[in-house]
Amino acid sequence: MPVPKDLPRMQYRFLGRSGLQVSAISLGGWLTYGGHVENENTFSCMKAAYDVGINFFDCAESYSNGESERVMGQAIKKFGWKRNDIVVSTKIYWGEAFGENPVNNRGLSRKHVVEGLNGSLERLGLEYVDIVFAHRPDRDTPIEETVRAFNHVINTGKAFYWGTSEWDADEIATAWRYADKLGLIGPVAEQPQYNMFSRNKVEKDFAHLYEEVGLGLTIWSPLKVGILTGKYNNGIPENSRLANSTDPSVERMRARIGGKEWDTFISVVAKLKPIADRLEVSQPNLAMAWVLANKNVSSAITGASRPDQIYESVKSLVVIEKLTPEILAEIDGILGNKPPVVKRRSPMS
Amino acid sequence: MPVPKDLPRMQYRFLGRSGLQVSAISLGGWLTYGGHVENENTFSCMKAAYDVGINFFDCAESYSNGESERVMGQAIKKFGWKRNDIVVSTKIYWGEAFGENPVNNRGLSRKHVVEGLNGSLERLGLEYVDIVFAHRPDRDTPIEETVRAFNHVINTGKAFYWGTSEWDADEIATAWRYADKLGLIGPVAEQPQYNMFSRNKVEKDFAHLYEEVGLGLTIWSPLKVGILTGKYNNGIPENSRLANSTDPSVERMRARIGGKEWDTFISVVAKLKPIADRLEVSQPNLAMAWVLANKNVSSAITGASRPDQIYESVKSLVVIEKLTPEILAEIDGILGNKPPVVKRRSPMS
Amino acid sequence: MPVPKDLPRMQYRFLGRSGLQVSAISLGGWLTYGGHVENENTFSCMKAAYDVGINFFDCAESYSNGESERVMGQAIKKFGWKRNDIVVSTKIYWGEAFGENPVNNRGLSRKHVVEGLNGSLERLGLEYVDIVFAHRPDRDTPIEETVRAFNHVINTGKAFYWGTSEWDADEIATAWRYADKLGLIGPVAEQPQYNMFSRNKVEKDFAHLYEEVGLGLTIWSPLKVGILTGKYNNGIPENSRLANSTDPSVERMRARIGGKEWDTFISVVAKLKPIADRLEVSQPNLAMAWVLANKNVSSAITGASRPDQIYESVKSLVVIEKLTPEILAEIDGILGNKPPVVKRRSPMS
Amino acid sequence: MPVPKDLPRMQYRFLGRSGLQVSAISLGGWLTYGGHVENENTFSCMKAAYDVGINFFDCAESYSNGESERVMGQAIKKFGWKRNDIVVSTKIYWGEAFGENPVNNRGLSRKHVVEGLNGSLERLGLEYVDIVFAHRPDRDTPIEETVRAFNHVINTGKAFYWGTSEWDADEIATAWRYADKLGLIGPVAEQPQYNMFSRNKVEKDFAHLYEEVGLGLTIWSPLKVGILTGKYNNGIPENSRLANSTDPSVERMRARIGGKEWDTFISVVAKLKPIADRLEVSQPNLAMAWVLANKNVSSAITGASRPDQIYESVKSLVVIEKLTPEILAEIDGILGNKPPVVKRRSPMS
Repeated sequence: MPVPKDLPRMQYRFLGRSGLQVSAISLGGWLTYGGHVENENTFSCMKAAYDVGINFFDCAESYSNGESERVMGQAIKKFGWKRNDIVVSTKIYWGEAFGENPVNNRGLSRKHVVEGLNGSLERLGLEYVDIVFAHRPDRDTPIEETVRAFNHVINTGKAFYWGTSEWDADEIATAWRYADKLGLIGPVAEQPQYNMFSRNKVEKDFAHLYEEVGLGLTIWSPLKVGILTGKYNNGIPENSRLANSTDPSVERMRARIGGKEWDTFISVVAKLKPIADRLEVSQPNLAMAWVLANKNVSSAITGASRPDQIYESVKSLVVIEKLTPEILAEIDGILGNKPPVVKRRSPMS
Repeated sequence: MPVPKDLPRMQYRFLGRSGLQVSAISLGGWLTYGGHVENENTFSCMKAAYDVGINFFDCAESYSNGESERVMGQAIKKFGWKRNDIVVSTKIYWGEAFGENPVNNRGLSRKHVVEGLNGSLERLGLEYVDIVFAHRPDRDTPIEETVRAFNHVINTGKAFYWGTSEWDADEIATAWRYADKLGLIGPVAEQPQYNMFSRNKVEKDFAHLYEEVGLGLTIWSPLKVGILTGKYNNGIPENSRLANSTDPSVERMRARIGGKEWDTFISVVAKLKPIADRLEVSQPNLAMAWVLANKNVSSAITGASRPDQIYESVKSLVVIEKLTPEILAEIDGILGNKPPVVKRRSPMS
Repeated sequence: MPVPKDLPRMQYRFLGRSGLQVSAISLGGWLTYGGHVENENTFSCMKAAYDVGINFFDCAESYSNGESERVMGQAIKKFGWKRNDIVVSTKIYWGEAFGENPVNNRGLSRKHVVEGLNGSLERLGLEYVDIVFAHRPDRDTPIEETVRAFNHVINTGKAFYWGTSEWDADEIATAWRYADKLGLIGPVAEQPQYNMFSRNKVEKDFAHLYEEVGLGLTIWSPLKVGILTGKYNNGIPENSRLANSTDPSVERMRARIGGKEWDTFISVVAKLKPIADRLEVSQPNLAMAWVLANKNVSSAITGASRPDQIYESVKSLVVIEKLTPEILAEIDGILGNKPPVVKRRSPMS
Repeated sequence: MPVPKDLPRMQYRFLGRSGLQVSAISLGGWLTYGGHVENENTFSCMKAAYDVGINFFDCAESYSNGESERVMGQAIKKFGWKRNDIVVSTKIYWGEAFGENPVNNRGLSRKHVVEGLNGSLERLGLEYVDIVFAHRPDRDTPIEETVRAFNHVINTGKAFYWGTSEWDADEIATAWRYADKLGLIGPVAEQPQYNMFSRNKVEKDFAHLYEEVGLGLTIWSPLKVGILTGKYNNGIPENSRLANSTDPSVERMRARIGGKEWDTFISVVAKLKPIADRLEVSQPNLAMAWVLANKNVSSAITGASRPDQIYESVKSLVVIEKLTPEILAEIDGILGNKPPVVKRRSPMS
C-alpha cells in the first residue's frame, strides 16, 4: 500500500532539552507488535511509519515477553534502515524471565537495569538503543542506584539517553538531584499517559520540570484506548481491540465499560464531535492534535495494526494549527478537567 | 532426591539498601565445595538449593584454593541456569597463588583486587559476579585504593556490587567516606560471622550503619560450626566435620573442645532445647530462625554436603514468626550475651 | 616530483596549552580531497606534505560527503605512515547521511557526535583521531550534552582531544564552564577562519581565551580563497577554482565578485604588493607568514591540488621573521581593519 | 648456575602508601637488557633475579629503543611466570620512534602517554603493566593533561599505578593537586637517582611528600655507575662498562673522570673502605645497604650482566641492620653531603 500523496510532512521535535529529535508521531509496540498482530503486518506498519517520516520506534522488554523487540529488530534489519536515521527506545522493568522468576528479573536494581538492557539489545539485534526508559518507578531500589545504573549503560555505549515512565514528579526531581550531586546524566524524558481524559501528570505535576530539568515527554495512549476516536460511542464493535484484547490494560478498561466514568467518557466524546465537524477534521485527528498542541510533548506514541491507521494519524499534524486559544478553551470547557497550575518562581531564578 | 512437598516458600530480602534480592537462606562453598565433598555431591546440593528457591551462591577465591569456584561454575553451566535468575558472589583476599607466593597474591591492593577477580571469573566461567566481597580488611592498603579498585571492577562490568567481610564498623564507615568524597559506590553489604554465640559485631558494632549507609548482611556460620544443632552435646561423632576436617577454621574450633568456652557452648545449647521442644521445632531450625529474625540479616549462608541438609534448613523459615518478643527475650536470658546498643541521633537527622 | 632541496625546515607548535604538537602548516581536505582532485593527485599531495614535515592532516565528515576521509585514510595506509607520527583530525556536524535525512544526522547531540565519529573512523580506517572538532556550534543542543559527548568519545579511546570550529567566544567559555564543573576535558582548540581580511574572531573575540583556557587555533582560509595571492587582481582566470568550483563557500565568494567588498579586497591586495616586493617574497608567502606571525595560531590549514603548491606554502616559514613590528604596523595601515582589544585583568589573577 | 644456598631472604616493601609490594632489590633493564648484554645472558639474569625473590622488573620504552621491553617480555613468557607473581613497570617519555621523528613521539601529552604505553605493552607482550612511570617531567605539557592521561590508561586496564621519574618535588605536589581536584589517582611513586653521592632530592626535596602524598621511591643508580663499589679506585679497568659503554649517561660520567668531582668520589670511596672492613661486608654491599636503610626507599633498581652480580647484591640485605645510627653518622661524616631538612608542620595537621 503506497503512502497517500497528500499526507502532511512529519514534524520533528527535540526530546526535552536534549539534542535528539523525535518525530511528533511515533510508533509503539505496546499492544500490537510481537502480540496479536502478525509479523508481516508489523513489518508493513513499520515500513509505512518510516515512509511517512516517523523516526522514533518505542518498545519495552516486557511487551509480549520480549517478542516486540525481536520483531522490531527484524524489521530494522529487513528494511536496511541506517542506524543513525532512526531513534529506538526500549523500557526496562519487567524482564523477559519475569513471569518465571520475578526475583531480580524486575525493577531498577543495577543488576536488572544492566541484565535487562543486555537482553533487549540482543533481541533487537542492536549495539545500542537511543533512549532507555525506566518503565516504572521502583520504590524498593534507591534512586541513586538507578541513576548510577543508567549512567553505567550510557558510559558503556549501550544507550545515548535515559528516561523514566510513569514516575512521580518528585521522583524525577530526585533522580536529577543525585545526577547533579554525582556529576552524572539525569533522565531526559518521561513517558506518561496523556490524553484529553488524563491530564494531571503532564499539565500539573510536571509543570515545573519542563524548565527546571528540561524534561521531554513521549506520551502514550493519546486516544485513550480508542475512546477518543468516538468509535465506541455506539457500543463496542465485535472485532475491536476493546472487545477482544487480552492485554491487561485493555482488560482493565473493558471492566469499566458501562460504569459512571465510562458514561462520562462517551458523553464528552459526543460533545467534542461538533468541534471536529466545525474544523472539518476527524475526531481521532482532533484528539491527537490536541495532545501535540502541548509544546512539552515531544512525541505521541501510537499503536497501529494496519498502515492506513498510521496514515490517518499523520493527518492530525495539520490540525495542530487549527487549535487556536479559543478552540482550546472551548474544548477545556467540554472536558471540564483542566488542572490548576500553581505559579512558582523557578528555584533557579 | 526430589524436593519434599511440604517445604515452606523461600523468602527473598533486599541486600541492605540496594535493589538486589537474595534468598534468606543461601549456599556457601566454604568448607565443602571443591573440598572434601565430591563434585557430583556438590552438584546435587546446588540443584537442591536452586529447587527450593535459593538464588544466592557464595564462594571465594580462597575456598579450596579456587576449586570451590570451579565446581560452582560447572554446576551453573551444567544445569543451564539463567544468569539473571541467580546471584553469585565471590570474595577476594587470598589469591589462588597465595600459598606459593604471598607477595601481591593477597590483600586489597588494586593489583590483587583486579587480578584476583579476573581469576575468579575465569574459574567460575562467568562474565561477572553480582557481588564481590573484600574477604578481610587489609590494614596495609589505604582504604581509598581499595574503594577505587572495587569501583574499577564495577565500572568494567565484572561485578554489580561490592561488599566487605569481617571488617570493623569504622572501616566500613571509612570506605563510605571515600566513596562519598569521590562520588564512587560504597560497600553494599558486610559478611560477618553471626549466630547465638557471636553477636557483638552485628548487634552492637554495626548498629548505626544499617541506617547510615544502608548496610546489608550476608552472615556466615549461623550454626557455629554445628555446635548450635546440639549434635556435639554428647561428644564429637567420629564421622563429623569437627572430628575430621582439615580446614583451619574447623581446626581452630577443634582445639577449643573441652575448654571453658566450649563447655559454656554445650551447656547453653542444652538449655535451648526446651524452647525448641516447646515450639515444636528442631534445634538447628531454632538457631537458624533466630539469625533470620534479625531484620538486618539479608541472607544466612549455609554449607551443605547433602541435599537433605538444605531441605532441613529451609524449614527454619516458618520458625521465624514463632520467635515472638517474649521468646526472643527468653533466649537472650539463656544466652546472656545480648550486647548493649547506644542510641545515637543519626548524623543525617 | 622530489622535494625541492632549499625548503625551510617545518616548524611545530603546541596546540594551545595541550602537549600535542602540530606542524605550523597543515593540509586540509576541504575543497579538494574526495572532491574534484583525483585520488592519485591527492596521494601525491599528501606524500609531498608528509615529506616536507607536515604532520597534521585535517578533514571532516562532511567534506565531499565523507569521501575526503576515505581518501586520506587510504593515503595513510598506502604510505605506511606510523600512527604516532601523524596528527589526524576530523570534524563532526553534518553527517554522511545529512543530505538524505537531516534529522539527527547533524549537530552536536550525543547521538550524532558518537555516530558521526564512528562513521568517520570507519571511513578513515583508524582506531582514533587525534582531535575531533565540533564543526559548528549547535544552538539547539545544550552545551553540557556536547561537552559530555566529546568526553565520552575521548574516554572510549576514539579521540585524544576535542575542539570547536566557528564557535563564538562565549560558547567556548561556556563549554569550559561545564567541563570544569563536571571535571571533564574542555575544548583544546578552535578552528576559525583567519586571514588578513577576517581578523575579528581571532584577534578580538578570542583575545582572552588564549590565557584563560589555553585555546589553540588551527585556522582555515589563510589566503581567503586565494584572493590574498593576488591571482584575481586582474580578473578571474578561466581555469581557477573561483571560476569553476561548485563548493558552496566558493560559490558564495563568486557571488561577491565585483561588489563593493570585492573591490576593496582587490585594491588592498594591490597595495600589499610593494611590501612583498621589498621583502623579496611572494604575495602568497606574505599572507601566509602574516597569519603564522600570530603566536596564537598553532597551524594554518592549506588546501592543495598539486605538490608544488605545498612546497610553495612552506617557503612562507622563513618569511615570518621578516615581519618586524614595523612591517606589521605598515600592513595594518593598509588593511585598516585591526580590531581593538580591551585589556582585562585575568579572572584568575 | 644455581642460586647460592646462603643468600638472605628477599625483603618486600610497600610502594609508598599503596598496597603493592616490591622487592627491596629489583632488576632494571637500563644499561643492559636489549643492549650490550646478549639475550641468553639477559634470560639468565632475569631467572636468577626471580629465583632470589626479586619480583620487580623495571624497563622503559626508551631503553635500547624498545629492545629492553621485548627481551623482558620474552623472558616472562619463556619462564612461564604467573602475571600476579611479578611487578612489571615501564616508563614513558621518549618513544620508540623518537629518534626518527621527535614530534609527538616524546613527552607526556595524552597522545604520547597512550600511544607510548600501547607500544610498550605490545613489545612486552602483556595486557598491562603494574606501574607506568613518566620518565621525566614534560615542562611543555600541562600537568593536568598528564594526570588525566595516566588515569585514562589506568581506567582502561593498561596499568594499575602510575609514578614519576626525576620530577621536582613541586611537580609531584602539583600532580596530586590536580588528581585531588578531579577525584583522580595521583602518582604513587617517584624514580630518582639515589646513592651516597646524590642525596638532595630524596632526603631534602621530597622530605615532606612521604607523609603528604604517601610517595614511594624506586631508586636507580644505587652504586653511582659502579663508583661506590670501589672498582674504579685504582683506575678504569679496560673491560669495564665505564670504559666501554656507549650509553649516554655512562659517557657523561666517563667525561668526568679525572675531574675535581671525580677525585672527590674516589677519595670518599677510599675512606669508606675501613667501615666496610670493620662491618665485614663488601663495599658494594655497604653502598646498597646504605640506600635501603632509608625507609622511604621501596626498591633499589640494579642492573646486572651476570647472575652472580645479582646474588652479590642480595647479600646487602643482611647489611641493613648493621647500619646503626652511629655507623650512619660516621658515614655522613665521611660523605659530608647530608642535606639539611627543614621541619614543617604538615599542612594537614
